[in-house]
Amino acid sequence: MNTSVIAVGTELLFGQVINTNAAYLSRELQTLGFNVLYHYTVGDNPARLRATLGRALADTDIIVTSGGLGPTQDDLTKEIIAETMGTRLVCDERALAEIESLFKRLGRGMTDNNRKQAMMPDGATVFYNPRGTAPGFALKRDDKTVIALPGPPAELTAMFETSALPYLERMTDSVIRHRTLRFYGIGESQLETDLRSLIDGQTDPTFATYAKEGECSLRVASKRRTREEADAVVERAVREVISMVGDHLYSDKDEELRTVAARLLIESGLTLAVAESCTGGLFASELVSYPGISEVFDRGYVTYSNEAKTEELGVDPALIERYGAVSEDVAVAMAEGAREAAGVDIGVSVTGVAGPDGGTEEKPVGLAWMALADASGAYARRHMSINRGRNSNRRVTTLAMLDLLYRYLKDA
Amino acid sequence: MNTSVIAVGTELLFGQVINTNAAYLSRELQTLGFNVLYHYTVGDNPARLRATLGRALADTDIIVTSGGLGPTQDDLTKEIIAETMGTRLVCDERALAEIESLFKRLGRGMTDNNRKQAMMPDGATVFYNPRGTAPGFALKRDDKTVIALPGPPAELTAMFETSALPYLERMTDSVIRHRTLRFYGIGESQLETDLRSLIDGQTDPTFATYAKEGECSLRVASKRRTREEADAVVERAVREVISMVGDHLYSDKDEELRTVAARLLIESGLTLAVAESCTGGLFASELVSYPGISEVFDRGYVTYSNEAKTEELGVDPALIERYGAVSEDVAVAMAEGAREAAGVDIGVSVTGVAGPDGGTEEKPVGLAWMALADASGAYARRHMSINRGRNSNRRVTTLAMLDLLYRYLKDA
Repeated sequence: MNTSVIAVGTELLFGQVINTNAAYLSRELQTLGFNVLYHYTVGDNPARLRATLGRALADTDIIVTSGGLGPTQDDLTKEIIAETMGTRLVCDERALAEIESLFKRLGRGMTDNNRKQAMMPDGATVFYNPRGTAPGFALKRDDKTVIALPGPPAELTAMFETSALPYLERMTDSVIRHRTLRFYGIGESQLETDLRSLIDGQTDPTFATYAKEGECSLRVASKRRTREEADAVVERAVREVISMVGDHLYSDKDEELRTVAARLLIESGLTLAVAESCTGGLFASELVSYPGISEVFDRGYVTYSNEAKTEELGVDPALIERYGAVSEDVAVAMAEGAREAAGVDIGVSVTGVAGPDGGTEEKPVGLAWMALADASGAYARRHMSINRGRNSNRRVTTLAMLDLLYRYLKDA
Repeated sequence: MNTSVIAVGTELLFGQVINTNAAYLSRELQTLGFNVLYHYTVGDNPARLRATLGRALADTDIIVTSGGLGPTQDDLTKEIIAETMGTRLVCDERALAEIESLFKRLGRGMTDNNRKQAMMPDGATVFYNPRGTAPGFALKRDDKTVIALPGPPAELTAMFETSALPYLERMTDSVIRHRTLRFYGIGESQLETDLRSLIDGQTDPTFATYAKEGECSLRVASKRRTREEADAVVERAVREVISMVGDHLYSDKDEELRTVAARLLIESGLTLAVAESCTGGLFASELVSYPGISEVFDRGYVTYSNEAKTEELGVDPALIERYGAVSEDVAVAMAEGAREAAGVDIGVSVTGVAGPDGGTEEKPVGLAWMALADASGAYARRHMSINRGRNSNRRVTTLAMLDLLYRYLKDA
């Protein structure tokens, strides 16, 4: 069945909020085997919401909306859906009770505009909100279904998982299965060129390459009658891809490099300390995003000043004097110093020019030296970011550090 | 004039990539005084792209597209736009030369599919790409204008600023001016309730509240004939808002709390050291995202293990023993320890339970203790995150630390 996703909210059209819900809903709907044909965003404007809902109902079978269920005056989604589907709003007693009890739990007074949230289209399947005050619902008329979910991502995802997903599973016929392979160290056009013989003239499975910041991915998808059939097609294709460009692959199930590296580190049982300059704690933070990392991640040093590099890591001031803070020698000394100071198995370091200022002809903005030290010694890697700004440089440099650690652990 | 933003790319409908371009373009278009009425996302599908472009041309005057200009086979945006606007594609020699020279600079071989990127609609104003290989363009027919930009955000923003913005400025009549006020420590529905007397029955200026993770914002906008007129209306309204809910305000120009705190720190000239446990370097990283912070940010400690807290910060193991690592006393000892170890003016610390595991009845997941130490002593703040997962807890806790530092500097 074909679906449309409609995000409602003037703040989206003002560009004040990024629409992450459309991506989340699309992933979930695709996995259920529904084709997502369109994303729409409209403001809190009755006429345009009505027009968009009308178009979506004409073009597709299932419409999922996000936003406009809240307490404030400009929240109109329920009213427009009820009107378009030819029904009216009635008060849902359980919803009202849940809203009242949530405010009690938070110890906050309930403002009157929150009662509005308990009004639901007559005949709708109400989805209660595990994470907030606004309930959602599914409303079916003839062969069209509209599912309305709240705008805040945490509420939308929780409600989707607890209520919308089971509701939709009862409607699905065929199944799309897909795998996303993630690559570091190869560009998108090179990836497509290398895979041309495989991709050309394919209808199922389908292959889609795309570039992310500092890396790129390949999505392999198959739509079949059964999950098993689709899985088998995808699995065969993935094996072919890996045989062609496997050197650059770091995940065959769309995991972040930080996740793969952190898991490998925990599996290795090797303890780690990190010493960061230009990335300013971002590398440590990326590793710490992984639950359970405390087993192996001992500590990090954000040695931003030269004094810090010397005092915390024992970097010889003469090295900084001779080669500069951004140099292979200082990166190695930082990695070794972090390892020794913390008394751990591995030390990883970085020193670079994040920008926007501080670049020179010899050491331009975007240049970073990173190193990894273990009991057997240390080695360094030079990394040059395409300079897309200070924080892009910091993110891309952090990705290169994750790759440095990942390859070390993979080959260990 | 009314505008639509069309994002092209099956990866968006698959939910593999989040559409940040629509938000960026919307902010820019609104600021120029163009109303953004719709965002559309369509896949790399000729029929649906044709249909969507047709709808957008019927409903609005200016259409801005992102994506589908790349080298790969599924990039079809130019072809469909040329066909819809009744023209054909011709090779742009300068574009071809720039693509060839970029590949030389990167020292990579140019694959054949990259030549496709130099084909431009006949009669278009070509926008050359300062950040990548795919050029964009503006194509005008009668009273309709289509502007095509590349999909990668870094390329899109650079091309918008250098080429599309000057092009659009020549088309604008009236002006929307807006200010976004950012608040910490007040919820969205409370904010709207407090401002009800101001918001009710307003048509210009308009007020829009919305919730972000851990904070909320208010957008005040006015659309007038001249920039001066609109600015004056917004300025008056902003002063009224501040008089009503100013205590919670931290920015009256939509700046991030990390930006406001970092700038205040640099202005204060006070040097800072940071000691983080549960946030794992995120707080340091947030501050380091601000250019020039090296003047005052000396170093950070990610003291994840208890040993690290003792060895790096001199936290008495007996304190950890008695009160636990997540406690007011340990937070204070960490802040004081960081300040002394680094020999700086201010120490800021945090220790908490990020989750998903490790929570107890007494110390649930989401609990954090943070402290700030200066020459006159130290004080702590208890922070409880609504538990929306490990990394949400880490982000919200970091925001609370930024608020702790911000309020200290503001009152200093």
